[in-house]
Amino acid sequence: MIVLGIDPGLANTGWGIIEERSGQVRCRAYGCIKTSAGSDLAVRLRHIADDVNAVVERYHPEEAAIEGVYFGANVRSAIPTAHARGAALVACSLCGVEVGEYTPMQIKQAVVGTGAADKAQVAYMVRTLLHLDHDPRPDHAADALACAICHTHLRRTAQLSKGSYMIERGNGYS
Amino acid sequence: MIVLGIDPGLANTGWGIIEERSGQVRCRAYGCIKTSAGSDLAVRLRHIADDVNAVVERYHPEEAAIEGVYFGANVRSAIPTAHARGAALVACSLCGVEVGEYTPMQIKQAVVGTGAADKAQVAYMVRTLLHLDHDPRPDHAADALACAICHTHLRRTAQLSKGSYMIERGNGYS
Repeated sequence: MIVLGIDPGLANTGWGIIEERSGQVRCRAYGCIKTSAGSDLAVRLRHIADDVNAVVERYHPEEAAIEGVYFGANVRSAIPTAHARGAALVACSLCGVEVGEYTPMQIKQAVVGTGAADKAQVAYMVRTLLHLDHDPRPDHAADALACAICHTHLRRTAQLSKGSYMIERGNGYS
Repeated sequence: MIVLGIDPGLANTGWGIIEERSGQVRCRAYGCIKTSAGSDLAVRLRHIADDVNAVVERYHPEEAAIEGVYFGANVRSAIPTAHARGAALVACSLCGVEVGEYTPMQIKQAVVGTGAADKAQVAYMVRTLLHLDHDPRPDHAADALACAICHTHLRRTAQLSKGSYMIERGNGYS
């Protein structure tokens, strides 16, 4: 199964494509969609949607996974992240790719084993799990790959136990 | 000039189309895009983007105006609103319609004359300014029409004075 992971952000949206076969995960590609702070918000969001669409058209992921918006420390910065997340989700839906949503804590727990892991630990474990010879850069791409790995872990675990799985929604959508 | 106003929300996105000629504004149409809480987030956001696109294709607005995300009282509810706002902005950009952004206070000041106006006052003034024989319903549609009126006010005032105008960004995009 090919999975697209997305770490949304208005200035930097990380993305990563992994392939999972028989429990083994491999990296296919990763990158970061950058938008300019000098551009209009609508143009920046369209840029994100267009580039997510291009990644889907190039790598044909069967499923996608996206990181939730964390707003514990800085509410103001959470709003532009949520805008970017909305743009990326619209692009996935337009491409017909279903998206799993995961909290930052779920992703860290799945990849490092603890929700308190820092970015360096996440990057190191992504490198190890995907058999890369270098840490994926920038951090946004590493986080996107971690999100994709989390999706394969939670999905597989659930398939082995109950045949279905539930994704915790971190932000109480109404 | 035909203007599309948008009051974004995940469950309810209000929209309104007004036409301004020689300083007089008239209502062309308004409505509310409703999405089901039982659907996937990506599907709901695509629904919003699709319907905004349909409104633009039907009424051909030359410009659009969208309300900012207010997060003073409830941060948790601001995140889904920002998701919806991202989806609506992507749709406008895909349609080639430029979007002005206004804070709730700017909109209330432009329509009622005070940033402390309540929803009933906004709806009453929208009804009066647009020569309607009823208050527009639901409140989301009235707010969207108010946003469009605000756009024509600030745009016209600026044209009469300096020939350009600045839109305050309420949420510190980075």
